Amino acid sequence: MAEQRPLIGVLGGMGPLATLDFLQKLLAATPVSRDQDHVPTVVWNVPQIPDRQHALAGHGASPLPAMLEGIARLNAAGATRIVVPCNTAHLWFDELAQASAAPLIHIVDATLAQLTAQRATGSTAPVGLIATRGALQAGLYQERLAAQGIVFLINTDAELDDLFTPGCYAIKKNQLRHGGELLEQAGQRLVERGAQQLILACTEVPVGLAQVSSSLLTISIDPTQALAQACLAYWQQASTHAHPLS
Amino acid sequence: MAEQRPLIGVLGGMGPLATLDFLQKLLAATPVSRDQDHVPTVVWNVPQIPDRQHALAGHGASPLPAMLEGIARLNAAGATRIVVPCNTAHLWFDELAQASAAPLIHIVDATLAQLTAQRATGSTAPVGLIATRGALQAGLYQERLAAQGIVFLINTDAELDDLFTPGCYAIKKNQLRHGGELLEQAGQRLVERGAQQLILACTEVPVGLAQVSSSLLTISIDPTQALAQACLAYWQQASTHAHPLS
Repeated sequence: MAEQRPLIGVLGGMGPLATLDFLQKLLAATPVSRDQDHVPTVVWNVPQIPDRQHALAGHGASPLPAMLEGIARLNAAGATRIVVPCNTAHLWFDELAQASAAPLIHIVDATLAQLTAQRATGSTAPVGLIATRGALQAGLYQERLAAQGIVFLINTDAELDDLFTPGCYAIKKNQLRHGGELLEQAGQRLVERGAQQLILACTEVPVGLAQVSSSLLTISIDPTQALAQACLAYWQQASTHAHPLS
Repeated sequence: MAEQRPLIGVLGGMGPLATLDFLQKLLAATPVSRDQDHVPTVVWNVPQIPDRQHALAGHGASPLPAMLEGIARLNAAGATRIVVPCNTAHLWFDELAQASAAPLIHIVDATLAQLTAQRATGSTAPVGLIATRGALQAGLYQERLAAQGIVFLINTDAELDDLFTPGCYAIKKNQLRHGGELLEQAGQRLVERGAQQLILACTEVPVGLAQVSSSLLTISIDPTQALAQACLAYWQQASTHAHPLS
């Protein structure tokens, strides 16, 4: 019974700040006149998950068992759709989706839907992709961008070492301003090489850029925001077909 | 096994913004150097709970069944302590605690612990109490303040009608600035009558005062913050005795 009601499950904790950023964006995106109008969520916000970047680099335990535990808990709690507000975690998307009764919404699908809606048909404007080394090496975004004929740029190895990676981990340590400055520089390098739009394809990046009120935000697609919009769209559609709620 | 690990359950959604404010304060209170150092939480953030203020005023359904469902889900998810970041919901605290295997941490206990730690012994400084009419009528805070010999002031009926209640509902509608201004005026009236400290005993109030950068915040005790501190203290104590986490 209760399991039939639309309910967004959030596999969070990667990192905890990115999870809150997602929840905040979902809340802000929802037109409400009272508490009861907000999208219902159940959030597994347990950050004791082995580091995704370390695991992909081959020097750390796999995060998969801990993520699968979260997926099981969210299903048990009655989630009807599950999202993971962490881009890099999507490298384990297929394993998570296979283990879940509730369908997962893919963050790259949500992001590309928003990106293509904004671009003029046939636009050749290059897109800069800011992401973890693991996500870049696995081609998480690139394959789908290429499939749509979208030209993209990524940070160099040196930029990842000097700017992106320390910026990302600074955010995780709550050093938001320092992290934001490093991440802004990583984005700026892509703009200097011709990027006309940016995809902030690591959930720490929008958090950091917001901290330093970066002007890059005006040309950026925020996958966290896109994921929130996809959840809202699902919930609005599903709740009109479900039992009326109190 | 997994159930033995310390895990904070959050019965949220009352309202959803206050829940995020609690999670944000828990995150900011926690000394971390990486994602994995953060306090693990599972959050039942389902706002389809009948309005607490309406129910207490006698013109609305009871929120208790929906709250009990949340308590059951949090226990099923393995919560070892449960908190409710909503002061007014604590009028149903005994029923919730009775139905829960995991002990609940009471927001007034957390708040008074922080208040008494800050006050000089024997201080006679009056404390202003900003709360919903339902919480005031039920004496949620007053009984415990009186038991400790602390003098307190509350808003008049007219101030509740004109300032507090519309301010609180404005926050719930995401009209944060307007709500913050009204709530600040409600607090200001108590200061004019002699309050030297304020207890922001409705979780919408700290959210609203922060929006307008209110100077009242400097003399305020924030129960949301106190609850976050209590959770952190529990987790730090419990996790030293539990299995090491990844």
